[in-house]
Amino acid sequence: MSDNNISIAVIKRLPKYHRYLRDLINNDVERISSKELSDIIGFTASQIRQDLNNFGGFGQQGYGYDVENLYGEINSILGLEKEYNIAIVGAGNLGQALANYSNFNNFGYKLRGIFEINPKLIGLKMADVEVYDVDLLEAFVDNNAIDIVFICTGAGSAQKIVDQLEHTDIKGIWNFSPVDINVSSGIEVQNVHLIDRLLTLTYFIKDK
Amino acid sequence: MSDNNISIAVIKRLPKYHRYLRDLINNDVERISSKELSDIIGFTASQIRQDLNNFGGFGQQGYGYDVENLYGEINSILGLEKEYNIAIVGAGNLGQALANYSNFNNFGYKLRGIFEINPKLIGLKMADVEVYDVDLLEAFVDNNAIDIVFICTGAGSAQKIVDQLEHTDIKGIWNFSPVDINVSSGIEVQNVHLIDRLLTLTYFIKDK
Repeated sequence: MSDNNISIAVIKRLPKYHRYLRDLINNDVERISSKELSDIIGFTASQIRQDLNNFGGFGQQGYGYDVENLYGEINSILGLEKEYNIAIVGAGNLGQALANYSNFNNFGYKLRGIFEINPKLIGLKMADVEVYDVDLLEAFVDNNAIDIVFICTGAGSAQKIVDQLEHTDIKGIWNFSPVDINVSSGIEVQNVHLIDRLLTLTYFIKDK
Repeated sequence: MSDNNISIAVIKRLPKYHRYLRDLINNDVERISSKELSDIIGFTASQIRQDLNNFGGFGQQGYGYDVENLYGEINSILGLEKEYNIAIVGAGNLGQALANYSNFNNFGYKLRGIFEINPKLIGLKMADVEVYDVDLLEAFVDNNAIDIVFICTGAGSAQKIVDQLEHTDIKGIWNFSPVDINVSSGIEVQNVHLIDRLLTLTYFIKDK
């Protein structure tokens, strides 16, 4: 399937379709119209039809969408038919929370190693996964075909970790550190700047 | 200051300006041109001038921006001259991680209480804050003038918590649960759907 020209806005909406369709399957809903889907997901019916047309449609006039089929297609478009090997760098509170977040595992993300600079944490197990010395990161990533690294370090260490990862074959970085990181190679980066999101929320409530 | 007509896109960029300006202050930088700011923050110089013009400019021709002054203005626009009282609902891994995330405290967000349904956790302290029975949430929120609630529960409980909060005077909800929540009153909601972000990242790496 060719999906080279899909806008980023559409791609960002796909996980939401994926989530709602999974709920529909869990509730034994077999088919749904774009209007009904619109009522629960909050996008307009015309937006839904437009979005899904990017991937060849899947809907049938007068029938709507076959929920399981549409879910399968979006699952495949998102690349979720494969498993992905994960490493977490930073075994502090957030790293531990992500390690224990069982949802990732359900989606096919397999946590293989946790890396830490603090000697008190090295050698422990979190979510049944060992905490290793961060000096071992590069070799581990290549030996274990790690696809995605979650960076859960403080501001001071994040870029150093990225610089190490540039020498490896990882494909993506999920950056939870409170700084922006610079990546020169083809590694994809998604940032979750928690404080930024909280400040935006604060803007909207400040005068209430 | 009137900022009623500022686009959401600008407001979402403000925390990033705030973050970079704080770093500049910490590095003793006193003034900066839009070109120099562009080089470090990654927005174009013209976008920066346009963004900051929404708030009356602050820059002077041939001088650039006074860093501390600009930081103070953005700090004030974001509403960060006040303190905000916070409660967390859900004392699992993510709730604990957020409770222990000291950055929030530095920005003036004061964690007052943590709420949980699991009797094993009720009565414990996390980050020096007590974990209470979730049945006490409504009364606590009003008695302690809680401004923002972080929802860190599973999918099944999130909407029930929101329904309770609708009867209180809270101003904002930061929703980390993996479902969308429905709010009928004037409560502002920011969602952090972690899995959605990871799926988007996966889309971009799936064929690498």
